[in-house]
Amino acid sequence: MNKVNLRPTTTMFPLPVMLITCVDGSGKPNIITLAWVGMVNSDPPMVSISIRPSRYSHGLVKASQEFVVNIPSKEMIRKVDLCGVVSGRDVDKFSETGLTPIPAAEVSSPLIEECPINLECKVRKIIPLGSHDLFIGEIVAIHIEDTVLKEKGRVDIAKALPVAYCAGAHEYWSMGKKLGWYGYSKGKL
Amino acid sequence: MNKVNLRPTTTMFPLPVMLITCVDGSGKPNIITLAWVGMVNSDPPMVSISIRPSRYSHGLVKASQEFVVNIPSKEMIRKVDLCGVVSGRDVDKFSETGLTPIPAAEVSSPLIEECPINLECKVRKIIPLGSHDLFIGEIVAIHIEDTVLKEKGRVDIAKALPVAYCAGAHEYWSMGKKLGWYGYSKGKL
Repeated sequence: MNKVNLRPTTTMFPLPVMLITCVDGSGKPNIITLAWVGMVNSDPPMVSISIRPSRYSHGLVKASQEFVVNIPSKEMIRKVDLCGVVSGRDVDKFSETGLTPIPAAEVSSPLIEECPINLECKVRKIIPLGSHDLFIGEIVAIHIEDTVLKEKGRVDIAKALPVAYCAGAHEYWSMGKKLGWYGYSKGKL
Repeated sequence: MNKVNLRPTTTMFPLPVMLITCVDGSGKPNIITLAWVGMVNSDPPMVSISIRPSRYSHGLVKASQEFVVNIPSKEMIRKVDLCGVVSGRDVDKFSETGLTPIPAAEVSSPLIEECPINLECKVRKIIPLGSHDLFIGEIVAIHIEDTVLKEKGRVDIAKALPVAYCAGAHEYWSMGKKLGWYGYSKGKL
């Protein structure tokens, strides 16, 4: 084993790659693709998303204090990439991608119909960190496509087909095989 | 398409599943497996990890103001699960798993030699959220096994073989195939 000591960079994988929806003051929706996203709290369930202040969606989420996390499937990957590289200031990303906005239950931002899982979030904290502001959102409603649901309300990953972003490689990857489940080792090798 | 509206739960995938190392006041190291982990800032590079205050590692990270994020490979999955279900109060997880602590460059917490990537972090903020406290760590040094490095300092994901945790399914998954790279759509479908 030979470890190389490198300068600090954003190196972590796999990361969730998510389509975040938000709305402007008139209710016009936008989409931004983010991978600086994570679960941060279990009770209540909270997610974090980091957005650069220069991005169009930053102002929308800050003003509306809400957003929706839409989990895309791998067949949407080109649309996922597109929504990360063009700006909602210049392009209507719903028109451009053909993705379908449908009403949410608790927030004004739309769900993306084609995404099998949608998490409606209300902003609880905003923490400036430097290049990005960290928005902490409490999940207030979840929508799951019935075709990806299994017993006990669990998601069938082999049907949801989520995508990972591998920062440090700049690549999108699909899921491979199930390796185990939380607690399967029962604390023994 | 038929979406089912469910009560809010921690549903998101794929999430990074990471071995976090920390030390007590005497320098004795511990390992905790976490999936509530993410990249949160690009400049400077910062990660977040969420830990329940009841966990042994919570007090260690809070007191030392540092930790290391070690990215495991899929062949380590049973050890990864074990380090998430037993407590460092009861078990020496390095002895139990046979994983090897080696000195870091900038912090007292050790690197795990068997993990191909190690991110040394210093705590910059602690944000209580409810069940968990969110620790924001600035990456101060990175170590990468030379066998997983490609050109331009990028990581070869097909060699690093990272693992995802799928919250909402309670499952660990391997990576499948490369689907594309950031910007490959050039903003066009």
